Amino acid sequence: MDPDLPFDVFARSCPSRGTLEHVTGRWGALTVVALYECTLRFNELRRRVDGVSEKMLSQTLHALERDGLVHREAQPTNPPRVDYALTPLGQDVADRLMGLIGLLEERMPEILAAQEKYDAERGA
Amino acid sequence: MDPDLPFDVFARSCPSRGTLEHVTGRWGALTVVALYECTLRFNELRRRVDGVSEKMLSQTLHALERDGLVHREAQPTNPPRVDYALTPLGQDVADRLMGLIGLLEERMPEILAAQEKYDAERGA
Repeated sequence: MDPDLPFDVFARSCPSRGTLEHVTGRWGALTVVALYECTLRFNELRRRVDGVSEKMLSQTLHALERDGLVHREAQPTNPPRVDYALTPLGQDVADRLMGLIGLLEERMPEILAAQEKYDAERGA
Repeated sequence: MDPDLPFDVFARSCPSRGTLEHVTGRWGALTVVALYECTLRFNELRRRVDGVSEKMLSQTLHALERDGLVHREAQPTNPPRVDYALTPLGQDVADRLMGLIGLLEERMPEILAAQEKYDAERGA
């Protein structure tokens, strides 16, 4: 959005659009924000991100790891354990996402009222 | 994320999760941010959100209108004209999204470097 930057999410071929999708997409935002609170193992994450399938969580984590937002660390324990944590850049992204999510949770009464009004006017 | 709030995006049945998806999903974030800059007509929006289809933009706008984030106004002109604008709540959501998008655009060099490293380590 800064015209001096070479990256622009509005341009369909800009790589920033892919990353925006990873951190917002259906499970990306929840995964990033869950890891803001603490380092988690795969199954802990899966319980926290209520409703995500094993396959979708795995895909989401790979995309976030590739973007450099999540760090995956295999612990040398027996049995082996894999921890997922945010990188410093991932923490910055999580900060912004938490601002958005906090706003939505806070304003849900207003949003629900708008939905009811919209449906009533259209006889839904 | 405030435990005193009755809404929690981490709960799969919470209505806040649907709204989070509307404002982040593939086209939601770009549509909201495009309207932050100015009121736009459908075809102007379609040009700004590079790559969106007519059908997807129409679905995106309906969801955002139902959530009370976008206001749709038919102008009494001939030929009739429909303008789309953000509501005050939509402006607040756009503020948060712009913070996120600005961060990603600014940090893309770091993200691209992480992607290259990830691919090189895996022989992709």
